Parts: sequence; structure tokens; C-alpha cells
Amino acid sequence: MNTVEIIRKKRDGHVLTTAEIDYMISGYSTGEIPDYQMSAWAMAVFNQGMTAKETADLTMAMIASGEQVDLSQIQGIKVDKHSTGGVGDTTTLVLAPLVATAGIPVAKLSGRGLGHTGGTIDKLESITGFSTEMEIARFSELVNENQIAVMGQTANLTPADKKLYALRDVTATVDSIPLIASSIMSKKIAAGADAICLDVKTGDGAFMKEEADAIRLAEAMVEIGKHVGRTTIAVVSDMSQPLGKAIGNAIEIEEAIDTLAGKGPEDLTELSLVLGAHMLTLSQKYTDVAKAREALEIAIQNGSALEKLKQFVAGQNGDQDQIEHPEQLPQPQQKIEVKIEKSGYVTGIFAEEVGVCAMLLGAGRRTKEDEIDHAVGIRLHKKVGDEVKAGDVIATMYVNDTQYVSEVQERLLQAYTIADVHVTPAKLIRCIVTTDGVMQY
Amino acid sequence: MNTVEIIRKKRDGHVLTTAEIDYMISGYSTGEIPDYQMSAWAMAVFNQGMTAKETADLTMAMIASGEQVDLSQIQGIKVDKHSTGGVGDTTTLVLAPLVATAGIPVAKLSGRGLGHTGGTIDKLESITGFSTEMEIARFSELVNENQIAVMGQTANLTPADKKLYALRDVTATVDSIPLIASSIMSKKIAAGADAICLDVKTGDGAFMKEEADAIRLAEAMVEIGKHVGRTTIAVVSDMSQPLGKAIGNAIEIEEAIDTLAGKGPEDLTELSLVLGAHMLTLSQKYTDVAKAREALEIAIQNGSALEKLKQFVAGQNGDQDQIEHPEQLPQPQQKIEVKIEKSGYVTGIFAEEVGVCAMLLGAGRRTKEDEIDHAVGIRLHKKVGDEVKAGDVIATMYVNDTQYVSEVQERLLQAYTIADVHVTPAKLIRCIVTTDGVMQY
Repeated sequence: MNTVEIIRKKRDGHVLTTAEIDYMISGYSTGEIPDYQMSAWAMAVFNQGMTAKETADLTMAMIASGEQVDLSQIQGIKVDKHSTGGVGDTTTLVLAPLVATAGIPVAKLSGRGLGHTGGTIDKLESITGFSTEMEIARFSELVNENQIAVMGQTANLTPADKKLYALRDVTATVDSIPLIASSIMSKKIAAGADAICLDVKTGDGAFMKEEADAIRLAEAMVEIGKHVGRTTIAVVSDMSQPLGKAIGNAIEIEEAIDTLAGKGPEDLTELSLVLGAHMLTLSQKYTDVAKAREALEIAIQNGSALEKLKQFVAGQNGDQDQIEHPEQLPQPQQKIEVKIEKSGYVTGIFAEEVGVCAMLLGAGRRTKEDEIDHAVGIRLHKKVGDEVKAGDVIATMYVNDTQYVSEVQERLLQAYTIADVHVTPAKLIRCIVTTDGVMQY
Repeated sequence: MNTVEIIRKKRDGHVLTTAEIDYMISGYSTGEIPDYQMSAWAMAVFNQGMTAKETADLTMAMIASGEQVDLSQIQGIKVDKHSTGGVGDTTTLVLAPLVATAGIPVAKLSGRGLGHTGGTIDKLESITGFSTEMEIARFSELVNENQIAVMGQTANLTPADKKLYALRDVTATVDSIPLIASSIMSKKIAAGADAICLDVKTGDGAFMKEEADAIRLAEAMVEIGKHVGRTTIAVVSDMSQPLGKAIGNAIEIEEAIDTLAGKGPEDLTELSLVLGAHMLTLSQKYTDVAKAREALEIAIQNGSALEKLKQFVAGQNGDQDQIEHPEQLPQPQQKIEVKIEKSGYVTGIFAEEVGVCAMLLGAGRRTKEDEIDHAVGIRLHKKVGDEVKAGDVIATMYVNDTQYVSEVQERLLQAYTIADVHVTPAKLIRCIVTTDGVMQY
């Protein structure tokens, strides 16, 4: 097979065969195909797109480039959830215990964050003693016992994807639907998922600014799932403002506790219920989404959801008293209020900017070497649609290191748009994408 | 300036500024921009194209990457001719002395060939003693004395183009009109041309198989010339079969001698007159193409064209007796006839295949290290439109090394298409492209 011919074929809009895609990905993975050919190919894919079959082949080729996690010791259908990323997205922390209450196995491999805020593991490590370092055997055991465990991802999953992603980042070939879709799906499948529930974010704070693009990405991933035999459902949800009100690590744990106790922010609660209900149907424990949702609502009301979180934390050597008493979680030295100067209505909160502010305070990493400060972050008091009066506190900064406080204060105020006229917040759940098509919600 | 942003800008179909193009080319030339970004950019250019202004900027940026030949010591307007390449293209050997008879300076920097047959220098070196190694000062002197000299190209012209071309070759980004046009024009301008006459080939044996593509390339180059102040004219000519009847080195010198003496193949003679007449108008010695052509026809008839060739050869230490007596040029050990097996009419000769045959016999280089055998090559006896009878000799192989003789014999026969019905050969001169537009010929 000839690399130049394969680049030319894609360049000219033809469909690549499974063998040709395998050749490109395995060749790139081993270094036989150099970066400069791969980047030309990626640009050709950007221009010409890929069929569903090609995208599925690309996904499988990337999986084949590395290890795969063997979760066969875990009983039941393993449903994994993935979010395309946003700001203040505490969903996993709520969803994992919530779904586990229904008896379906939540076996989550997770990573640390880079950028805005910490990853799920960083957030969980706010809890004293909580550890995600374990072997697959122990992990499987924990899931079988408690229906829930989170493990640090140590296996060399989809190295071809990692290499290709780094290349795409410097060659303006990131925002290609088939390349994004196969990158996400390959990681989930390699991590052992039997079925996948996707939360595709759209809006200013998301990678996909336009809803139409988010839907196209959702469709592409659902199609991949269909081709490779892993049922996939995607929820397209709003990220035009931060989700929930907490952005940080301990502060997001606290918000998850509130939500599991039925006292969480409305948007976070609703999104968790929608995603959770679909995870239950994917697990085949429920056939009806409405009934599944009802079961989850009951779990919140009767306290079993919060109980499951405690069980989960205890299972991984975390201090479950901190779940009962969130004030025992890491606390900052100072809480500094940010006050708005003019009256009106909040019409927008630039989510990405709020994420950057949390990172500047120490809640996220600018470089891989940075250490996270679990105690710091930002709590928003006003969201889109709320009325504000001059002097109102719109946000609180949780601060240890004061270096960036005045900058963050300034940027937070800039991140808010205030107008004289009230606006209704953007619809939270835009649509659900399944193999049957796009359903308005 | 940011490389990724520039790639994205071109990817999305926007027009790059002069500064952005300079940044890409100078950065690539110095190695600051790596191959993998350049190939993604080249693929984006392939997809989105370039405006005339962008293409001219690219041309000038490539010229700026290296040395420029200073021909200011040569009197008059230096008109250079460039062919986009074909098989058996003896045109330069005919044109250079022919045009010099009109008193216009022919100052040609030339290279050695790689592939099918030798380059102009390889062909000229068939003549005993002929040397193209000299300094610019001596070269300028020779042109001022004889109106003609050919020098081996030693200066480091357009290194960015060399580097980019090598990259395009392995990333399926060769066949992009703006990239081809700027590559050709940058080399000609860096080599000191004041005005440029292009022979853009079209047909099976050419790089541009389709006439429409050849015209688009011609237009792009004429446009570049206009933008950078070097008047450029392009002749679009047929390469659906080899030009002339000789493919090799000494054998092409002999054909050039014949043509300058008025006894050459019709197609080679006609193309040389058309290109030559346009070179004379570009030199501003003539304003009327028909009058210029007449002057060249007279130079052939009265023997001054052949005389100019002798003067040229003598000026570069070549044995001019070999021009008078071509049988003294290198001769092969054997001449082997290739006979056709069926009767009919020649309807096609696959030019590229004939070129490969000449190379296999030793007339061209497969790798840069190969040595050329000046004596070998192929003489065609039948061209498209000719009637053949079973047993007729269609070609003669000039052979020293017999290793590939049976393969070449087989391939030559395959290269000919014989049918029962007579066809008229494709029109030799398709059109002339100037800044005024495309003129049918």
C-alpha cells in the first residue's frame, strides 16, 4: 500500500477502505508514516469528510494501536458516559452514584484535567484519603460490590489517537467531525464500555459553538457506535453559560452532594436526570426513559443516591464524614465577593472566561506539572435570566494565593453581560440523538 | 504571526496577505516551520486555491529564499523559455540558436535531467568537449559575443521551492495550479529572466493531461508575470505523442541539427517557430508575431541558424565538426529495429512509456547517481496518423547495454495503438495565453 496514493484518494473525495485506514493509523503509530504525510491526510479528511463506515474504521484502527481495558470480570452491561467538555461540569460526580443506585455497574476510568478546572479524579481527591490507584482486579471487585468505582487511567489506550491529536492541534485540523468523533469513541471503547451515553455540549463555552455542529458530531458518534456494536446515545446540552454554580474541585464535590440530596442547582439536576435515565435504558435495566428517570428521582428523594456516594467514597478509602459534613472538605483562606456595579438582568455568562478565572485561582492546571489547589474556585450566585441590582454579589472567589485576585475579579465582571431587558436562558436539553435520529426534547 | 492561524485561514478559504505568505515560506526555508505544518498548509492551498496576488506573493517569497542570478552585464532583454516537460522535447536545442540569430540574448541556465531522458546539459554534453561550467562573468561575455550560451546552474536558486517540492511530492499536493505556477516562475525569475516564454504541454505524455488544466496553469503563470513585472506568454502545445522522432541525447542533437537545417520533423519545426516568434516579440525586437516568424524561417533557409549552433558549440569548447558531421556524435554499438505485427493506422503513441523505454536503454537517469549513455535512445519512424503494414519498422532502438532490450521492444509495441481507421493527429498548437487572454491558434 502507498501512503501518497491514500492521501490522494482522500484528497479527491473518494472513500477509503478498512485496510487503507488501518495502514495509515498503524503506520503512523509505529512511526513508519511521518507527521508530514499524516497532517496532509488529516487536512484532506477535514476537507472531504468521511463516511460513517470510514469513521468507524478509523475508530477501530485507533483502538488497535494500543491496549484495551478488560472489564469482563464486571457483571452487567457497562455504560460509560462522556462529556465533550464544558465549564463547571459536575455531572459525572452526580451521575456516577445516581446511576449506581439502580444497580447498574459504573466502572469509570478517568484522568486528571488540563486547563479550566480539574478532571474527575482531581475533584474526587478533594476528599481526604480518596484514592484512584488500583489494579483492574480490585477495580472490578469494587464495581461488583458497590456498582461504582473510579480508577486512574494508566493503560496505554489509543496511542495513535494521542499522537494524531497532538499533530492536529498544530496543523489546524482539530475541528473535523469524523476526527473528533473517532477520537472520543476510540477512547471510550478501549476503556471497556459496552454502551456509551454522550453529553455533547453546545454554545459559547463548548467546543461546538453551533447547535447544528453539535448535532452533527452527536450523529457521527452514534453512527460509530452502531457500526462497532456499542449502542450509543447522545444528549445535546447547553453550554452557553457554566453548568451549575460551582467551578473548582472541593466546591464541585459539595455541589454534587447537594444535588444528590435533592438541593442542587436546577440545570445540573435536570441534566443529570436526563443523562442518567438514558444510561439506565442503555444498561437494558429499563426500556422506558420516563420510568428510568422516575427511579432516579426516587433515589434522590429517599436518600439512597447520597448513600451510594458515601459507599463509593468509603470503597476508595475516602473520608465519608466529609460527605455528611462538606464543611470538612478543603476550605480556602479567604472568600472574596465580587459585586456587580449596575442593575439589570444577566443575559450572558462567558463560560470559558469563568473557567479561566477558576484556573488562575489555582483550581486547574496551566501545564501538566502544575499542582491543583482543591480548596479554591468560584461560586456563581447569578445565572442567565436573574435580575441583579447594583452592589449585588454575583460571584464568590475561593482564594488561597492572592496573586491573580484583582485580575480574576475584573475578568469575572467582564464575563457577565447585563442588560435592561430580561432574557430566558437557552434551553438546557436541546435534543437526544439515537440511531433512530434526532429527537427534540 | 501564528502558523496554525495561517493554515486555518487558508483552510477556510480566506486570502492570505503578503506578510503571511512571506512568513510561511521564509519560516519553512529556515526550518522554523516544520514539514508537518507546511504539508497541511499545502493541502489547504490544494483545496482552496490562491488568488493571482497570492500566487505572485508566493513566487516572490520563494525567490527571496535564495540567490538570484545577476545577468545585468548582458545587453538587451533576456527572454527565457520554459517547457513544463514532455518526451523527446528537443525544442530548447533548436530554439536557442534559432532565436539568437535574430540578435536577442539567449542566456540559459540549465540543469541535468532525472527520469525519462537527459536535461538540456546532458544532451549538449553528447558533443565532444562541450562544457557548461563557467562563471557568470564568462557566461555574460559569451552571450554578448554570440547572443547564446548555456550554463550549468550552480547558484542556490529558490531553496524554499526545492524543499516544498520534495514535500509536495510525498504528500499528494503536487498537482495544485498555484503551487506549480509559482514553482516554475520563481525559478525562471531567480535565474535572471526579464521576460518568459512558456511551453505548457498537454495530453497523455504531459503533466497536465487535460487541455483545460493546461490553460489554467498557463493563465496562472501569465498572471504571475504580470504581477511581478516580467512579461510572460504561454503556448499550450500537444504532448499526446512524443514531439519529433528522436528520444535520447546525441540522437536529439542530431534532430536539432536537422531542424535548424530545415529538414527536421514537422511538429518540432512548427513548435520551435511558434515559440521562437513569441520570444522575439517578448524581446521587443519585433512587434508583429508573423514578421518575427518570417525572420526565423529565413534564418533556417539561409543557413544562419545552423551557423549559430556551430558558433554556440565552439564558444563552449565543443567540437563543431560534429555539427557538420553528426555521424561523429556518440554512436551505439547496435541499432535494433522494432517491427509492428499488424497493419492499420497509428492512432496513439503513449509518450510517457516511450520516455521510460529510452531511460531503460540508458538515455536517462533513474537515480541522481546514474550515468547517462549519450549514444543510446529511440528513433520513432511512425507517428500518429501514419499508415503501417505488418512487418514495418516503427522504431529503432539505439543500444549499448542489452539488458533491457527485450523489455523495451515489448513496451514500445505496447505504446503504439493501431486501429483500422485513420485518425488526424491532435492539433499541435492549442492556444496562446497572454495578459489579453486565451487566443485560439
